[in-house]
Amino acid sequence: MSATLENNFPQIGNIQNLLSTFLAKTSYSQLVVLCDENTHQYCLPLIKNILPENTLIAKIPAGEVSKNIETCQLVWEQMLQKNCDRNACVLNLGGGVVGDLGGFVAAVYKRGIDFVQIPTSLLAQVDASVGGKTGIDFQGAKNILGSFAQPQKVLIDVAFLQTLPLRHLYNAWFEMLKHALIADAAYWQELTNQRPEDIADWTSLIEQSIAIKYEVVRLDPLEKSWRKILNFGHTVGHAVESWALQQQMDILHGEAVGIGMIAELYLSHKLLHFSEEKMWTCAKQIKKYLPKIILQPQSFTEILHWSMYDKKNAQGEIMAALITDIGKAQPQCVVCAVDFEAALVFYNKVIQYE
Amino acid sequence: MSATLENNFPQIGNIQNLLSTFLAKTSYSQLVVLCDENTHQYCLPLIKNILPENTLIAKIPAGEVSKNIETCQLVWEQMLQKNCDRNACVLNLGGGVVGDLGGFVAAVYKRGIDFVQIPTSLLAQVDASVGGKTGIDFQGAKNILGSFAQPQKVLIDVAFLQTLPLRHLYNAWFEMLKHALIADAAYWQELTNQRPEDIADWTSLIEQSIAIKYEVVRLDPLEKSWRKILNFGHTVGHAVESWALQQQMDILHGEAVGIGMIAELYLSHKLLHFSEEKMWTCAKQIKKYLPKIILQPQSFTEILHWSMYDKKNAQGEIMAALITDIGKAQPQCVVCAVDFEAALVFYNKVIQYE
Repeated sequence: MSATLENNFPQIGNIQNLLSTFLAKTSYSQLVVLCDENTHQYCLPLIKNILPENTLIAKIPAGEVSKNIETCQLVWEQMLQKNCDRNACVLNLGGGVVGDLGGFVAAVYKRGIDFVQIPTSLLAQVDASVGGKTGIDFQGAKNILGSFAQPQKVLIDVAFLQTLPLRHLYNAWFEMLKHALIADAAYWQELTNQRPEDIADWTSLIEQSIAIKYEVVRLDPLEKSWRKILNFGHTVGHAVESWALQQQMDILHGEAVGIGMIAELYLSHKLLHFSEEKMWTCAKQIKKYLPKIILQPQSFTEILHWSMYDKKNAQGEIMAALITDIGKAQPQCVVCAVDFEAALVFYNKVIQYE
Repeated sequence: MSATLENNFPQIGNIQNLLSTFLAKTSYSQLVVLCDENTHQYCLPLIKNILPENTLIAKIPAGEVSKNIETCQLVWEQMLQKNCDRNACVLNLGGGVVGDLGGFVAAVYKRGIDFVQIPTSLLAQVDASVGGKTGIDFQGAKNILGSFAQPQKVLIDVAFLQTLPLRHLYNAWFEMLKHALIADAAYWQELTNQRPEDIADWTSLIEQSIAIKYEVVRLDPLEKSWRKILNFGHTVGHAVESWALQQQMDILHGEAVGIGMIAELYLSHKLLHFSEEKMWTCAKQIKKYLPKIILQPQSFTEILHWSMYDKKNAQGEIMAALITDIGKAQPQCVVCAVDFEAALVFYNKVIQYE
């Protein structure tokens, strides 16, 4: 049975301590650890000695390609073979894919069993770990199947970040910049005064990002309205991501959101009178950490087409969360196709700007 | 987004009136009608003229065999092709399989869209239509994947029952007898004073059965404890059903529950001092409508084995809801293997009794 969000702020600390404290307070009939090839190798050893001997270790292939219903079926099969009952608990040890898929696996198994998120990537720690969204991709479209289900606990250890390549720190950085842009101008200053590669201890920044997301989700857990501000950068971003994945282009979620944020800064300026000067300053801050992907004008129509599949839309209109100022967001703005394409033109201008 | 149970008692009447009233009050972006081969032929014509022209009709094969994840995928695929957004609504036109599967399809599509149950079998009308359980089978085990999600509305028309064969009326009769046994001695008298084949208007009986289930579910929607009384007959019943389906035996859910209730009347006598005389009277009433299936002693172990997979179990113990008197139930009783087998022996004795 899924937990509630209230009083369930993620815990940050040493994973051995956090997890053994949690396990000591519970009496699950069976533990299941879901990991991918990478977290099996690098992260599982950090917790293995505190897991009961009969723990089921379910390993899935790494990457977005395995975030599908077939992978879920492989996990359910193992859980059924192990005779997992409703009193079993799934520990999701991994990044966003493991957390999203593992949450869905648990939310649907026997109509819902407990699960714990142990996010191991910076992106998952600052973003996917809060919010109670679970989901998988279907037929190439992102997160089409899923449910709202809160984990029993979210346990975060910055030690997991030591093995992360720089590109994956950047990947999370975009979401952190997003948190600042939609809700906290001081946090924006703090972030843009430093570079991810120089940060020795991530704890305080992770806490600030989580606090922003946690508060937004608490006010609107089922995303009726206000929570949609978290989608800033995601209307264009998801469309670019889906399009790029179909092209088998190497792009990370955060990078797509970075591209999307630059485009949506333009939309914020165009539609909500966000200042032109700040639009440029913010865009250049985001651009610093992006690979130089130029979107060819002939692909605009396809990207626009992908945005039509977005879950956020209603009645065939493209919807976006935009900002009126740094730290101030509006959840639901209608975007027409012409402005959508003009935003991609602006992005191309920014990314080519020296 | 799923609705809540409160103030959402099923509506009974003419389906044309009920459905057009509902549709007039809502503004869905897309309607999806889920039906099986039978309801496509016999029931869809009764509502077709009030559906918008662009309604997506998704037809699945009839029967429990299609209650699986592959069938869900076929429906999701069609919904995605039709570009269904979060403001779409699924109308489940059919018996238990269509309602359970269609509810799951809707509960998980884009993290949950609206759905309406239009149960067309008597069993679905008295049982599956209330409770907010959705689910599908997985690897031969019943309802292993699913979620709790309330339909926006449940619309019932007894006109659908006219095409039902007698065996399917009996199939529901067992669940109605169950409602009486766990909660309402007067209803038990009313039911056992007549035969399903003689009933001209089902409305009042359907209302009484639904009222019992509705009240139980309202008190405990997520089946933490009290709601489990609805499982009377289902611990043995589900095990017999799973075992029989694996043997490719022709058995209906209600029939399995009928068998299960006879066995669990014995367990109620043995474990909760339910009177021996009433045990026999009740068992004979149930037996009247059962096919003469004798469970060979050599299959007891296999049936017991299936009961181990039951979602109701915890910590490896077999759990059952039992009764202390007609109309009085206890939700969670532990049953040992020896008593489980003795209950099957009792069932065999009853079914062979002339």
